[in-house]
Amino acid sequence: MSAEGAQPGTVRPGGRTARVRATVLRAVGDILAERGFAHLDLSDVARRADVGKTTVYRRWGSVTALVADLLMDMAEQSSPRARTGSLLGDLKANARLVQRTLTDPRQGPLFKAVIAAATCDARTAEALHHFYDIRIREWAPCVRQAVDRGELPEGTDAHEVIRAVSAPLYYRLLASGDPLDEAAADRAAEAAAAAAKAGAYVKDRKDEKIERDA
Amino acid sequence: MSAEGAQPGTVRPGGRTARVRATVLRAVGDILAERGFAHLDLSDVARRADVGKTTVYRRWGSVTALVADLLMDMAEQSSPRARTGSLLGDLKANARLVQRTLTDPRQGPLFKAVIAAATCDARTAEALHHFYDIRIREWAPCVRQAVDRGELPEGTDAHEVIRAVSAPLYYRLLASGDPLDEAAADRAAEAAAAAAKAGAYVKDRKDEKIERDA
Repeated sequence: MSAEGAQPGTVRPGGRTARVRATVLRAVGDILAERGFAHLDLSDVARRADVGKTTVYRRWGSVTALVADLLMDMAEQSSPRARTGSLLGDLKANARLVQRTLTDPRQGPLFKAVIAAATCDARTAEALHHFYDIRIREWAPCVRQAVDRGELPEGTDAHEVIRAVSAPLYYRLLASGDPLDEAAADRAAEAAAAAAKAGAYVKDRKDEKIERDA
Repeated sequence: MSAEGAQPGTVRPGGRTARVRATVLRAVGDILAERGFAHLDLSDVARRADVGKTTVYRRWGSVTALVADLLMDMAEQSSPRARTGSLLGDLKANARLVQRTLTDPRQGPLFKAVIAAATCDARTAEALHHFYDIRIREWAPCVRQAVDRGELPEGTDAHEVIRAVSAPLYYRLLASGDPLDEAAADRAAEAAAAAAKAGAYVKDRKDEKIERDA
């Protein structure tokens, strides 16, 4: 098997295959950000990336495969979690990262395009869910360490807390259209931290306990 | 000006114009739910609604105008806010309503289609934001009454609390793909209530005036 035909990740990062992948995925991201998923076309990607059409067809073969690989690359390239020493510090860093990404002139439209595509394409939806799964797993230790430090109750669902930080920012981007600024990011982090401290994300609670706390 | 040419809302609800509007918007919703925004076409809407093409062209004139009117109708038709007597009760009712809507076999795909369209069409985005604005205003009194009852701190931003209930459910629908079940709805309500009680949604003084004036 030639390096050209190898799967991404099986060759050394500096090799020709990795360079081709980076160039192609850059072109995919550019097209998505500028024109949206509906305008993504393999020949156009090859032309923009200045890569042979055969390479793109043989290695990815479909538009959804290109988007799935782009999302995988974005998950790999995305910033590692913060280690500020406090739950609120870590969650604010996470919220600010999400806010900066969604308001970035290239990344914002790119995310909108992929999310729009995922609403009507099952394979793109799967790739998108996988992207968020990787990002949530990256940040979950912030919550588990807060439990260890005694900042949060035992049994807090770390993934739910991380989702809770992102959710209000995506809601603003995709649904309500309210400003997506640093104040919104900080408030998202503060609300998630407050709810977590109050035990709202403790797993497997009995209904009677919820009623008692209400 | 004939009744036919009048704007929606200027004629009596039971009249022919209202019936035509209801039939046309039903067809628009069906097409969006079944095939998505890209397949929405005025001639097709007229055919499905069994209404003259001229009527649809003259009264709405564009696909985005049809979607904007559908969203207005959905906001008008949507359930009134709950009055359970407790913040958690009201927020759970809101969360369950959002969850049922987003998982409904017709409404779920319809919302996905409109949200996807809004990512690349400014007028649809504006209509969507208006829809959420109406819905948030409908439910905001639940929060203000909780402040009056002493359940929440003075200065709590009612709109932020209502957004916080919906956000995790939309995040699951559009981004992470996690299950959108009643447990997720209840948790969204509990987290929003807990964060609100902890003062996470108390407004800055400068924000307060803006909202009062809005």
